[in-house]
Amino acid sequence: MTIYEVENFPNPVRVRLALAEKNALDRVKFVPVDVMAGEHRSDSFRAINPDATVPCAELPDGSVIGRCTPITEYIDGAFEGTSLIGDTPLQRATTHMMNLRAEEGLLDAVGAYFHHATPGLGPDLETDQVPAWGLRQKARAQSTMRYFDGVLAKQPFVAGAVYSMADITLLAGLDFADLAGIEIDTDLTHLHAWREKVRARYQEN
Amino acid sequence: MTIYEVENFPNPVRVRLALAEKNALDRVKFVPVDVMAGEHRSDSFRAINPDATVPCAELPDGSVIGRCTPITEYIDGAFEGTSLIGDTPLQRATTHMMNLRAEEGLLDAVGAYFHHATPGLGPDLETDQVPAWGLRQKARAQSTMRYFDGVLAKQPFVAGAVYSMADITLLAGLDFADLAGIEIDTDLTHLHAWREKVRARYQEN
Repeated sequence: MTIYEVENFPNPVRVRLALAEKNALDRVKFVPVDVMAGEHRSDSFRAINPDATVPCAELPDGSVIGRCTPITEYIDGAFEGTSLIGDTPLQRATTHMMNLRAEEGLLDAVGAYFHHATPGLGPDLETDQVPAWGLRQKARAQSTMRYFDGVLAKQPFVAGAVYSMADITLLAGLDFADLAGIEIDTDLTHLHAWREKVRARYQEN
Repeated sequence: MTIYEVENFPNPVRVRLALAEKNALDRVKFVPVDVMAGEHRSDSFRAINPDATVPCAELPDGSVIGRCTPITEYIDGAFEGTSLIGDTPLQRATTHMMNLRAEEGLLDAVGAYFHHATPGLGPDLETDQVPAWGLRQKARAQSTMRYFDGVLAKQPFVAGAVYSMADITLLAGLDFADLAGIEIDTDLTHLHAWREKVRARYQEN
C-alpha cells in the first residue's frame, strides 16, 4: 500500500497513528506530495484522488481510498491487531459517531479557522477565504474541546473503555489547534490529562 | 430501537431507506421531534443527543447513536440482509469514501446553502447565517453532481457494483437539492438515469 501525504499535516498524522497501532508503519510506502507548491491540485494528482486532498491510499490492485476515516476502515480490517473501530455493531456505531464529533467539531473546525480566518497556507493556496465562516468554526472548535472534556471526565477514551479511531482524531485535532493558535483552556483538566496519556502511547513506540 | 426524527427531512430519510433495505421499518419506533418549534435545541433533547440534531437512535440499553453514517453502521450490523457497507476492508473503505463525497460534497453542501444563503427554516431557527459560505457550498453541490454523473457513467452504483449506504446518501442529497432550489443540470444524464432507477427501488417496496 502506498500513502500519499504530507508528513506531520493533521490528517496524514491520523493515518500514521492508525498504522502505528497496528505495528504496520513499515509495511507501507509513504510518498510525499508537495502541497505547498500546489501539487495536490495538479491534473496528475487529481487523476489519483479527485478530492485533491492528502492523505490517500493506493492499493496494489490500483484502488484508491481517500479521506482518513475510510483509510482507517481499510487499515483496521486489512492489518492484524486490536480493532480501532470495534467488533460489535454498537461499538462500531459509537466509534464512528465520536470520530465524527472530533473530526467535524474539532479537526475540521480548526481547519476552517486556519484556512479561512488566518493566512493559512499563504495567499497562493488560500484563494477562497470566507473569514466569517472561519471565525464561527473557531468557536465551534472551542465548544467541542469543552464537550470532550466532559466525555473524558466519565470514561478513559473518546468512544468508551478502549482506545479507538476517535481518540486518534481528537489527538490530531488538538495538535492542529496548537498550530492554528487556538488555545486549549487550562480548566479542561480531563482533556489535558487524556492528551498526555495518549501522547505517551506514541512516545513509547 | 427508537429513532428520533422529522419524517421527510433529508437526513432522517437516509435512516428510513437503510431500514427499508433491511426490511426492518416495522421493527423500529419512530418519535417525531418538532424541529420547527426548536425542540431539538431543548435541554431535554440535548440530554439525549448533545449534537441537537435528528435523526438519532436510542437502543434498549439506553445507548444513543447520532448522525446517519453511525446509525447506518448500527443498522447494517444489527439487522439481517445484504450489507449496505460491504464485507471486505476495501469494500467498506470504498463505501465510506463515496458516502463522504455524497454527504459533504452534496447533502451537507446543499444544507449549508439552504441554511445560510436562503431563508431556510425561517428567522427563528436560522440565527447564525453566513451567506457567502452558503453560496460557496451551492457551487460545491453542483460540482459534486457533475462528479457523480461521471462515476455513474462507469458503474451502476455509487460505490461500485452493488447498492450501498453511499447511494442512499446521494439520493437524499438530490432530493434536498430539489427542496433547496438547486437544479440538477439536464446534461447529467447518468445521474438522472441512476436516480430514476433507485427511486423505483423504493416505489416497489
